[in-house]
Amino acid sequence: MVGAPLDSPDLLYASGFRAVDPVVLLDRGGARTLVVAPMEYSRAVRECPRVNVVDTKLLGLSRRQRARLSSWALRLLRRERVACVHVAGAFPLGVARRLERAGVRVRIVDGALYPERLVKRAEELRAIAESQQAAVIAMRGAVRMIAASSIGQDGVLRFEGKPLTAEDVRRAIDRVLLEQDCVGRDLIVACGEHAADPHAVGEGPLVAGRPIVIDVFPQHRRHGYWGDLTRTVVRGRASPELRRMYQAVRAAQAAALAVLRPGVKGAAVHAAAARALESRGFRTGAEDGRGVGFIHGTGHGVGLAIHEGPTLGPSSDTRLRAGHVVTVEPGLYYPRLGGIRIEDTVVVTPQGWRILAPCEKRFELY
Amino acid sequence: MVGAPLDSPDLLYASGFRAVDPVVLLDRGGARTLVVAPMEYSRAVRECPRVNVVDTKLLGLSRRQRARLSSWALRLLRRERVACVHVAGAFPLGVARRLERAGVRVRIVDGALYPERLVKRAEELRAIAESQQAAVIAMRGAVRMIAASSIGQDGVLRFEGKPLTAEDVRRAIDRVLLEQDCVGRDLIVACGEHAADPHAVGEGPLVAGRPIVIDVFPQHRRHGYWGDLTRTVVRGRASPELRRMYQAVRAAQAAALAVLRPGVKGAAVHAAAARALESRGFRTGAEDGRGVGFIHGTGHGVGLAIHEGPTLGPSSDTRLRAGHVVTVEPGLYYPRLGGIRIEDTVVVTPQGWRILAPCEKRFELY
Repeated sequence: MVGAPLDSPDLLYASGFRAVDPVVLLDRGGARTLVVAPMEYSRAVRECPRVNVVDTKLLGLSRRQRARLSSWALRLLRRERVACVHVAGAFPLGVARRLERAGVRVRIVDGALYPERLVKRAEELRAIAESQQAAVIAMRGAVRMIAASSIGQDGVLRFEGKPLTAEDVRRAIDRVLLEQDCVGRDLIVACGEHAADPHAVGEGPLVAGRPIVIDVFPQHRRHGYWGDLTRTVVRGRASPELRRMYQAVRAAQAAALAVLRPGVKGAAVHAAAARALESRGFRTGAEDGRGVGFIHGTGHGVGLAIHEGPTLGPSSDTRLRAGHVVTVEPGLYYPRLGGIRIEDTVVVTPQGWRILAPCEKRFELY
Repeated sequence: MVGAPLDSPDLLYASGFRAVDPVVLLDRGGARTLVVAPMEYSRAVRECPRVNVVDTKLLGLSRRQRARLSSWALRLLRRERVACVHVAGAFPLGVARRLERAGVRVRIVDGALYPERLVKRAEELRAIAESQQAAVIAMRGAVRMIAASSIGQDGVLRFEGKPLTAEDVRRAIDRVLLEQDCVGRDLIVACGEHAADPHAVGEGPLVAGRPIVIDVFPQHRRHGYWGDLTRTVVRGRASPELRRMYQAVRAAQAAALAVLRPGVKGAAVHAAAARALESRGFRTGAEDGRGVGFIHGTGHGVGLAIHEGPTLGPSSDTRLRAGHVVTVEPGLYYPRLGGIRIEDTVVVTPQGWRILAPCEKRFELY
């Protein structure tokens, strides 16, 4: 592996080294050697007790060689007499070509480098639950803020004498996450039109009577594990149509959870959610060339990456196992009405599943 | 290019799309086509007015093909009748192999994909200055906090009735950055032993009489540009030795800035800083197998990446150009004394350089 551990879940998993700068890691059946820059050496030794740490000076690289990661990798492989490496598809092409020119065979692993990474150990579950709990605390603050807002004559929410914007709520969430030693990136607080686009982060004034999607996914700064939580609220009363839509999404989440257990394929969980929405009359398809309805998968794995396996989508063949951590997040999106999504993160248990950090569900806030 | 724009400065630069999820971008002499997932389509069209946006459905990919980025790339290249692509060394090997199997030639660019990215336009300089100003505001708060602390009998700093820790100061910095719509990652507040390791983020109680290195590097959430600023302070009085060390580092920064101008090689700037330290008797070398003295380069470029070209290191051949933005950050590190580093971020101008956001330098706080 070659890269910055903080940007590569596999590297972070294998090394335990929370570094922003690039490293090289060789894993020979569990015996791991980590190459770092000389000035990272003492920190790496301290942070990675189960890994053999060397620096580029110890490897005998010249100053010029030390500037090229491919030289780090090549020297390490020579020293360890390795003639063939198995790498992930994301391995940098430049390093691969350099190794190949030097006679090293570079094979791409079929599937994940550490498939065991998806099955979480107890300490990993605690870490994800910690991030998820931070998301819950932040969500409660956000919902309280919206609930405490007043409704102006134009329908715009007002808080502490000013219009309440998506940015205000996002900043409040960020502040709470920080207190919990977590950090969020592009959290979603999306109202009305924006909420109809599941990836729009949202902006501008929030208005009464329209769904506000709040999607909070913090990464913990200490251990790097993520959490993921979404709630949708309406300030004031929702129309009967919106209420039906919300109930359908809740029912879809319940339907997905009802079938979620070890041995079940991700696709089956998604199908259960999709059926629940369809049977309540909520169609998925295209409208004016734009996807509407249930336009994303039901869930994804969460761990050192915010999006990892297993996925719960229409073509997810992977069978769930105890220890998998997945989001369950059905949603409905119609430009005219906005979007509604409800998401919890659960761990698959031998009997079924367990929510990692419970958070109440309120829709209408009045 | 293949990857998540927010994790790839080149992709962010070329697309303007601030997305966490992966995309594919083809640049044909400036005419850029961006491939995104269907649910990112409307957002991408909105955020990238100068780029031709398509989604994987528009490209006619099947559901299964849509799950593989190499299929996105391949279909785009077929549609555009491209037989040869030039990519960065970091391009994913898996995608490259797939393209090659399909008959596309994949060449690695010698050097940067967008060398022009290092020469900043006026709007980019404003963006970096904005992040740098956030760092200045946060730095002032951190220094004020340490200056306002009292010194306990054990030498540990106390603030609001409790020991003042590196974590406390870091959290205060994070909070200020957030108010400025910036976010920091692994900011450094390192005292004593920790400060002797230039990359240790620091932890535990801060103590009087020992240097505290504060390194703040925020990324702005709106535009993605970074800033980078370091100050070193001592609460109380510093020993004469530490004072000499601080003055040497200040002199080294001044010496580096004295030679910094267009046409000068990065190595020459580094040499000026190194000479200033050596001439004041501060040696660089090994002590108990550990590097001591001036053990890192004098600076690096800053932009959409926190570390980019040009570098100001011992083997930096690149000649500086007006519009380059670099840090100038000499430092000295001795386990017995701790570390001292002073860093400002400057833009190279036709006449020399300009500090992007000035910040006063105080060493002893008493």
